[in-house]
Amino acid sequence: MPTGNKQPESITIALDCMGGDFGPEETVTGAKIAVEEYEGLKDLKILLVGDTNEINKLVNEGDNPRLSIVQSDGKITDDEHPIEGLRKKPNSSIVVTTKLVKSGNADAAVSMGSTGASMAASVMILGLLPGLDRPCIGGPFLGLAPDTILMDMGSNIDCRPNLLLSFAMIGCVFSEKFLGIKHPRVGLLSVGSEPTKGNKQVQESYKLFESSPVNFIGNVEGMDFFTGRADVIVCDGFIGNILLKFAEGMGNVLRKYTQAQLSKMLPDDQAGDLGEKLWTETNLARSIGGPLFGVKAPVVLGHGSARSKEIAGAISTALKLVDLDVQSDLEKSLIELANHQSTGDLVG
Amino acid sequence: MPTGNKQPESITIALDCMGGDFGPEETVTGAKIAVEEYEGLKDLKILLVGDTNEINKLVNEGDNPRLSIVQSDGKITDDEHPIEGLRKKPNSSIVVTTKLVKSGNADAAVSMGSTGASMAASVMILGLLPGLDRPCIGGPFLGLAPDTILMDMGSNIDCRPNLLLSFAMIGCVFSEKFLGIKHPRVGLLSVGSEPTKGNKQVQESYKLFESSPVNFIGNVEGMDFFTGRADVIVCDGFIGNILLKFAEGMGNVLRKYTQAQLSKMLPDDQAGDLGEKLWTETNLARSIGGPLFGVKAPVVLGHGSARSKEIAGAISTALKLVDLDVQSDLEKSLIELANHQSTGDLVG
Repeated sequence: MPTGNKQPESITIALDCMGGDFGPEETVTGAKIAVEEYEGLKDLKILLVGDTNEINKLVNEGDNPRLSIVQSDGKITDDEHPIEGLRKKPNSSIVVTTKLVKSGNADAAVSMGSTGASMAASVMILGLLPGLDRPCIGGPFLGLAPDTILMDMGSNIDCRPNLLLSFAMIGCVFSEKFLGIKHPRVGLLSVGSEPTKGNKQVQESYKLFESSPVNFIGNVEGMDFFTGRADVIVCDGFIGNILLKFAEGMGNVLRKYTQAQLSKMLPDDQAGDLGEKLWTETNLARSIGGPLFGVKAPVVLGHGSARSKEIAGAISTALKLVDLDVQSDLEKSLIELANHQSTGDLVG
Repeated sequence: MPTGNKQPESITIALDCMGGDFGPEETVTGAKIAVEEYEGLKDLKILLVGDTNEINKLVNEGDNPRLSIVQSDGKITDDEHPIEGLRKKPNSSIVVTTKLVKSGNADAAVSMGSTGASMAASVMILGLLPGLDRPCIGGPFLGLAPDTILMDMGSNIDCRPNLLLSFAMIGCVFSEKFLGIKHPRVGLLSVGSEPTKGNKQVQESYKLFESSPVNFIGNVEGMDFFTGRADVIVCDGFIGNILLKFAEGMGNVLRKYTQAQLSKMLPDDQAGDLGEKLWTETNLARSIGGPLFGVKAPVVLGHGSARSKEIAGAISTALKLVDLDVQSDLEKSLIELANHQSTGDLVG
């Protein structure tokens, strides 16, 4: 696992090629796109983890030497219980991928496979950062608001205020390091700006956030994902996941709607083009993957239905996380928060 | 208050003209648009409730005789405590408006004023339907999915499963009578379709819904507002309100975004037209108002920032509620649900 706050000279990504709805064909193509994209820009290497026979068919001799294959056996599927899957399949693609990071052979892991299995493997093999008992998926999710971060996107359904505060802290580090936003403003997602507005969870969290080290601006509302009032918007994964899927669903409808509306006014390709853009603007998380925060190395999870270009996007996110050494700052911040809480500076 | 299941010959709406961000000028114009729209179609009369001097300036002799003025004194503002407001201002516009319905002089109330004050006035003056301890704002909220109903939109923040079931029942009546959907399918908003998915509230509600009289299809997800899987989607008002405002905020951004994208390809008016449409499609609740369900007469609440055309839309919704006598069926269904629950047919 990388240490220190300097830019690494060579970056190696372990890619779980068996995960994802479209199998190795799609993931390997994604890897090829990524290495080509960074050719001459970054010394990016990708370890293609999976069934060697299958992957060999997809990687030709003429292909980029930056790709190499690592053997794994089997995969954990979406309908398997993650922990049981890990126990029964100790050489499955997600386990091997994650172990490559643990052993230092890779700097980050990328998977389009079962989210539960990826999270479980990351927690059990890499371990959690201080003060956390669960990891968290978060990041920007709307192309229409690419600098506004949603934490959590669905990994933690019922959250206590302390956990929400950890997510806020993580979001701030990501916002600052990854998006270059100074002193990110943190908002708690609620139904009104006053401290008394919101459900019990939000009301309790409000007090905790007020006395915390984060730059808390108070409650924000649903429209504030688009107003730029906050850089990091915090909610539990139940609401976060509903919003994420709501935006995705809207994108699907907008694509058809705009195409139909414009078909009488513009040539087909132009009419379709805006629809495609609107889809992308509402489905950003699919295009760039979502970092799994809170574990002791960079891990990026992609959508199961991701296509090669989106898989390349997830690899690119992982590369950027390593390149900017976001991990070191995350560790420092969470230690700072844990110290802050243990000295009793915080309410609740 | 109207009774019986027949179409009324003449419909009278009491309109709180003092509520809303733009005052009587906007509400009275909205009333004029509505009576003109229904001229010759329905015998619609509107009682303009407010300061007689102010309203007199806005209604000319040549104006439609279907408009008449009812005097009130003062209004309850958004920043006042609703119950205190009602006590201190017993002749305020919302109180007089609601009392006109209670006394049978009007069939429905419409207000763009403080939601809290409108709800409080409705509950205290009109009373609640059987089995409810709170009213609920709900209905369709997306032009992109006009037949999918969201219950609750923000009136009840922390909801017990029993209350969510009442909202489901109300949503079904509205869906059936107002939108003409037979045997509406009810979905619980969650993060996965399995019964074990979701937060504690949803998991508990799932069991209750399963053994209830509603046509429960299980959990639905954020994208299902657009997939047509369910006709009535139930969640607590905390999530409902966040979604409503999220969609509204997205509409604001989409309007600008599409205009900018299309400005190079289409003449200005056409480029702007799609943006306007997208705004309307994501801001439906603004255009038609939201029924306040669960009180003993039809009440429609509009957005504070509603303009005359949208105020006319809210009046039109109220007219349709009366015309279809949605109220009688709501009462019957809630009595049925209360009987069902008291006979112990339900879990929890």
